[in-house]
Amino acid sequence: VLTVKAIEGLPEVRPGDDLSALIAAAAGPVRDDDVLAIAHKIVSKAEGRIRRLADVRPQPRAIELAGQLDKVLRATRGVLICVTHHGFVCANAGVDASNVPGEDTVVLLPQDPDASARYLRARLKDLLGVSPAILITDSFGRAWRHGQVDVAIGCAGLQPSDDWRGRTDTTGRVLKATWIASADELAAAADLARTKDGALPLILIRGAGRHVTRHDGPGAGALIRPEAQDLFR
Amino acid sequence: VLTVKAIEGLPEVRPGDDLSALIAAAAGPVRDDDVLAIAHKIVSKAEGRIRRLADVRPQPRAIELAGQLDKVLRATRGVLICVTHHGFVCANAGVDASNVPGEDTVVLLPQDPDASARYLRARLKDLLGVSPAILITDSFGRAWRHGQVDVAIGCAGLQPSDDWRGRTDTTGRVLKATWIASADELAAAADLARTKDGALPLILIRGAGRHVTRHDGPGAGALIRPEAQDLFR
Repeated sequence: VLTVKAIEGLPEVRPGDDLSALIAAAAGPVRDDDVLAIAHKIVSKAEGRIRRLADVRPQPRAIELAGQLDKVLRATRGVLICVTHHGFVCANAGVDASNVPGEDTVVLLPQDPDASARYLRARLKDLLGVSPAILITDSFGRAWRHGQVDVAIGCAGLQPSDDWRGRTDTTGRVLKATWIASADELAAAADLARTKDGALPLILIRGAGRHVTRHDGPGAGALIRPEAQDLFR
Repeated sequence: VLTVKAIEGLPEVRPGDDLSALIAAAAGPVRDDDVLAIAHKIVSKAEGRIRRLADVRPQPRAIELAGQLDKVLRATRGVLICVTHHGFVCANAGVDASNVPGEDTVVLLPQDPDASARYLRARLKDLLGVSPAILITDSFGRAWRHGQVDVAIGCAGLQPSDDWRGRTDTTGRVLKATWIASADELAAAADLARTKDGALPLILIRGAGRHVTRHDGPGAGALIRPEAQDLFR
């Protein structure tokens, strides 16, 4: 049985805050085989990845945007579908204005979300003596379906996918294509325990221990399809 | 708290089986605000959507395939990315050979998965006196990310998405883009309670009652992005 529970009581996160200490104080009892799913926004805020658009003149802003974006794939109806420096394909390069205090203030994606996840995991080990998996999530749109689902943009201590190719099904047939993006499914499950007013960035998932690993592992970057294998770019 | 639990004890489903009776016998206590997530394969099997490739000569097979596929978007490395008659964009038009007894036997997608979901919901109401939401799922790949995640291909009694556009976030700012594909997130959550050898097609999700509706609703077809709005076709 999988259980997915929002953790309440986390304060508004500000640049420079020790996010791991805030999580340790709020989380209650956590186990080594738990997954802590964290909306990227509080990671970005703690890391100071906030910009006030009013503070930047067009040219520096353009330069900053250019640094964020490797490429704009499509531009339509006020939305840019971008490839970020991480390799994510998402709307507006993941720059988001919701749930950010201050007018004209936006939050960027963490610079290196897998590194952020590894850092948080190590700090939680120091603070709590346990090493739950850390999963950093964001809401991404999809090419052919309406709406967004949360996906994994960073993780540590989590097998990002579950590759059944070469294993056999119940009839003994070898599976040729079954390769589950389990970290993305965990991100989606976590989002169901939230309300989108954004007050619940921290989610505890219990019962997914078969995806949790002792080592930090390759991170969510391993889920990015390389451009050379991309049929829709 | 959301809980996601695999239901054991469902027999191998065969064409003509009364799937609702099999589910009613296996499911145990079910509530009106539960979601029953069902891997499409057992729905397709019950509906007789099975084909033995050895039984069809090339020409009828080609004709049948042509009926299945509105369009082939991409063809590469032995995979066709197709638009099905439902409007789904997925690999090999959703035709799948895993977990199907008999060599050279494949399972097609249900003809009308939203209708299948409505039918199962009505039958369960007759058999059990409760109307849980019914969610029929399949594993789809994604354009820019490795691996597959389960998505909603049919549903009844479930709000397929949760549209926050026009509502306000915690800072009072109006949300412009937040539109959650909740049925897809539920499908992904359900898949986490399975193992991919395919033995656990039936999953009970409890705690997602805010997405469950009394009426059957628009179905998962509402999640398909119309071709006219598609930037990546």
